[in-house]
Amino acid sequence: MLCLQRDSNPEWIVVASANLDRILVDHAHCEKKAATFALAMMNRYPHHERLVADMVDLAIEELEHFRLVLGELQKRNIPLSPMEANPYAQQLHDHVRTSEPERLLDLLIVGAFIEARSCERFSLLAAHAPNDDLKSLYSSLLASEAGHYRAYTDIAREYCGSDVVRARLQEYAMIESNIVASLPNQPTMHG
Amino acid sequence: MLCLQRDSNPEWIVVASANLDRILVDHAHCEKKAATFALAMMNRYPHHERLVADMVDLAIEELEHFRLVLGELQKRNIPLSPMEANPYAQQLHDHVRTSEPERLLDLLIVGAFIEARSCERFSLLAAHAPNDDLKSLYSSLLASEAGHYRAYTDIAREYCGSDVVRARLQEYAMIESNIVASLPNQPTMHG
Repeated sequence: MLCLQRDSNPEWIVVASANLDRILVDHAHCEKKAATFALAMMNRYPHHERLVADMVDLAIEELEHFRLVLGELQKRNIPLSPMEANPYAQQLHDHVRTSEPERLLDLLIVGAFIEARSCERFSLLAAHAPNDDLKSLYSSLLASEAGHYRAYTDIAREYCGSDVVRARLQEYAMIESNIVASLPNQPTMHG
Repeated sequence: MLCLQRDSNPEWIVVASANLDRILVDHAHCEKKAATFALAMMNRYPHHERLVADMVDLAIEELEHFRLVLGELQKRNIPLSPMEANPYAQQLHDHVRTSEPERLLDLLIVGAFIEARSCERFSLLAAHAPNDDLKSLYSSLLASEAGHYRAYTDIAREYCGSDVVRARLQEYAMIESNIVASLPNQPTMHG
């Protein structure tokens, strides 16, 4: 699926399905963090007009999803607990190079992989959802995360060129695959 | 206007009118910073359901305004330069108390004053706009900033009680008035 080299461990969906309340809370925070990441990209690269225009659209969409998930939490009387660390995203960020333009490319690719992995996990959640309500939530978000993956890779191609992007996507696919293999299958979106 | 004790120095609109390009760039960053502040409030107070619900609406609206101002910049071929410090907002934050629940109250009041002052400045910009295009931009934003002022003060009343909010608004009105009096009337939204 998209650029992913490895499917999630089958244990993850078992753990996630048994803890759908915790998945919803973590998912809410992920949408908010995705908007925060888009804002940080705009702050870091204000001169990149295309990047800023696409990131503001993406940030608004992530916040609309956050609002949607908040509604699901309220329906179920689940409180939004404080945000927790996301080791998956942190480990992806550990491989971002510090000099430009490599940094820009790597940050966009990290954004793309987080969207791609979320997309894969939403498809698992949709397939295993215990009711139509959650099935339709996850199915609708799945399509939109795939669009975000494309947004990140399109911006990367615009500023860094297709060949460079393709090569780094392949390197990061390996990095991401190793990170996913090492995760403990906890009830979080990227756990 | 709203809770403001002091009008902007008449010099500010003279300087601003002579530098409308710089005002637009700074304004774009202010909308983005307002969204960032709303996100930070949600991260700090996830258990406050009403606060989170109102802050996500506000963050989305600020980002929609940011997109609107970006459109105005593009129409005029003005690049978005890197974000600069905002001494006005920083000085308001210097008076935020560090213990809870005072911190929550003060942060909401800081948010309210930034919206109120922006509202006053938009009304000056609308009145002095050199064309209908900018006049209608600033007039439309003016109404929305007034709504944001009310959102911040309503949330404050919900969590801190009307009397406490009224008293602290009065104290902060004095603080804000002194800050505004000390500003050098630069071509920024809160300069």
